[in-house]
Amino acid sequence: MSIAILHGSTREDGNTEELAKLVLEGIPHTEIKLRDKTILPIHDQRHDEGGFDAVDDDYDGIIRQVLEHDVLIFTTPVYWYGISGILKNFIDRWSQSLRAPDYDLKAILAKKKAYVITVGGDNPRIKALPLIQQLKYTFDYVGLPFEGYIIGKASRPGDMKKDSRAAVEAAWLNAELKSLV
Amino acid sequence: MSIAILHGSTREDGNTEELAKLVLEGIPHTEIKLRDKTILPIHDQRHDEGGFDAVDDDYDGIIRQVLEHDVLIFTTPVYWYGISGILKNFIDRWSQSLRAPDYDLKAILAKKKAYVITVGGDNPRIKALPLIQQLKYTFDYVGLPFEGYIIGKASRPGDMKKDSRAAVEAAWLNAELKSLV
Amino acid sequence: MSIAILHGSTREDGNTEELAKLVLEGIPHTEIKLRDKTILPIHDQRHDEGGFDAVDDDYDGIIRQVLEHDVLIFTTPVYWYGISGILKNFIDRWSQSLRAPDYDLKAILAKKKAYVITVGGDNPRIKALPLIQQLKYTFDYVGLPFEGYIIGKASRPGDMKKDSRAAVEAAWLNAELKSLV
Amino acid sequence: MSIAILHGSTREDGNTEELAKLVLEGIPHTEIKLRDKTILPIHDQRHDEGGFDAVDDDYDGIIRQVLEHDVLIFTTPVYWYGISGILKNFIDRWSQSLRAPDYDLKAILAKKKAYVITVGGDNPRIKALPLIQQLKYTFDYVGLPFEGYIIGKASRPGDMKKDSRAAVEAAWLNAELKSLV
Repeated sequence: MSIAILHGSTREDGNTEELAKLVLEGIPHTEIKLRDKTILPIHDQRHDEGGFDAVDDDYDGIIRQVLEHDVLIFTTPVYWYGISGILKNFIDRWSQSLRAPDYDLKAILAKKKAYVITVGGDNPRIKALPLIQQLKYTFDYVGLPFEGYIIGKASRPGDMKKDSRAAVEAAWLNAELKSLV
Repeated sequence: MSIAILHGSTREDGNTEELAKLVLEGIPHTEIKLRDKTILPIHDQRHDEGGFDAVDDDYDGIIRQVLEHDVLIFTTPVYWYGISGILKNFIDRWSQSLRAPDYDLKAILAKKKAYVITVGGDNPRIKALPLIQQLKYTFDYVGLPFEGYIIGKASRPGDMKKDSRAAVEAAWLNAELKSLV
Repeated sequence: MSIAILHGSTREDGNTEELAKLVLEGIPHTEIKLRDKTILPIHDQRHDEGGFDAVDDDYDGIIRQVLEHDVLIFTTPVYWYGISGILKNFIDRWSQSLRAPDYDLKAILAKKKAYVITVGGDNPRIKALPLIQQLKYTFDYVGLPFEGYIIGKASRPGDMKKDSRAAVEAAWLNAELKSLV
Repeated sequence: MSIAILHGSTREDGNTEELAKLVLEGIPHTEIKLRDKTILPIHDQRHDEGGFDAVDDDYDGIIRQVLEHDVLIFTTPVYWYGISGILKNFIDRWSQSLRAPDYDLKAILAKKKAYVITVGGDNPRIKALPLIQQLKYTFDYVGLPFEGYIIGKASRPGDMKKDSRAAVEAAWLNAELKSLV
């Protein structure tokens, strides 16, 4: 059972990654930081005769790496009540992967488990719910089982340790993941 | 009363812009297509000592142009149950504008009116509701009055004209905007 | 093609029924006003050995009448951001109908079409969205196709005629229903 | 610091009350079971000249009892993706309390804290989110601070103890409440 964690934060060692560390404490995993990669926004060519043009960026390498793992953890700070732009660009490109000639995205994702970790500063346990609902629809569309999510509350650097509730939820998920491994 | 329409679609003459055309028929407006611009993802430096670094892309020019208008219409296809990545990147950068030394984003936006036009292929009148809720929270945060939205259903090129309901809603909004002008 | 409209309002000739009149203008239909009936809250006996006790109220008669129609229109004012208590009690009792020995609720509902008309006073096009999402889940659970909804804005008696947008949507649905009949 | 817990379940010792017991272990509180009371659905007379007629049931006694406490915990099983009909009827009647001549509902509620405990069988951590959003809007309307919620997953009697995540969240809330008392 291998785990990939895909970070959507644009800040090094921010609160979202702080919370993710609690979740993954003592668990081997592959870490992917989208901020260190270049992923261009999708250009919708679903209806072009020739389909999507190849794009010269890091997307293909990342999606292939992600698909090699059994458990996918998506982390994102709550940016304007949604996932971060860099994570959105990554997910938007799935439209391209759905048409990849050499792998079947839905068939592969159906065998995995997804978790979401998100942290926001403005009442996230209420105002991040549309973000969760959006990811639920997204995962449903590709057949990826959505196993759970943790919403944390933090804004300034260091705030994460004040959210005792997120900490107990992270400890719970840590145990859950260990039982899978 | 001046109107700016900000397009989040990545396809020329797609369904979302088709619907927007109905809304704006016979109404002077400024059209901004994000796909023709370069807007980098935000790099969260809210907590850096020096604040945000200047970014060399089209964002500043666009936000200044947007802010000169009284009515702001945001259009986006439903991409993975959210706004498109290019529109998300634009909105994410508002965090930077909130700290701009030479204008007061909230004070300016408070005097405007916002509308949203979004079109999706997968049951959008249900599955685009989290997208609407996110934008509501977003507009509330900056104090921008959210005056209304239209959700259309279309997927392939040309589908838009089959959505008779979106057409009557577009006609209604057209009349509404004309009454403002 | 027969139509039943089930009113969840507790006020005679309120705004929700005003809007429903526009929708059904010139269309034969059966009208059921829950406020004129007695429907007790469910007593959850799903896990009792003997199942649900028979309840001496109007529920059975109403559900049987509803099930005889092809199109079901549910109307409710937005009460505290949800459907009215009397409509909620009616729907809660579906748990009992799911176990009825003499009819198969899901099989029957799968062949029908459902519409929802709801009217609220406090920004309903945003704040009634959870109500719509809740009914979507409800209809999905029993396999009832959810064909559309109209959200109107009105508070005081007579307000309904000020909502020109709801009026065009009602006219659209009126035409849609006529095309079905 | 006094605590009232208001149960919306219709089943004795069901899963929701099981979870509530974990939350309140060792904490003095007043327990109110709506299923043992009679609360009639609201009759909307907001716009009647004389206002609301007095209603001969248990509502007035319960609301007065509730208002004497500092912390209000609402519990409800997820019935058809919403709160139970008996809890909905109780909340619907707040419209009447808003017009009570001898107390100021909003002023009183503003000084309290509300928590919600809800348990459902069908993917509640996703499908009960509209329920949470409705209650958020409801509490906002009356100015009652919404301090937190726990969503549990259980269906058959005894299922509650299988939800280890709800258990850690309940333990967290138990500690939180003890720190208030």
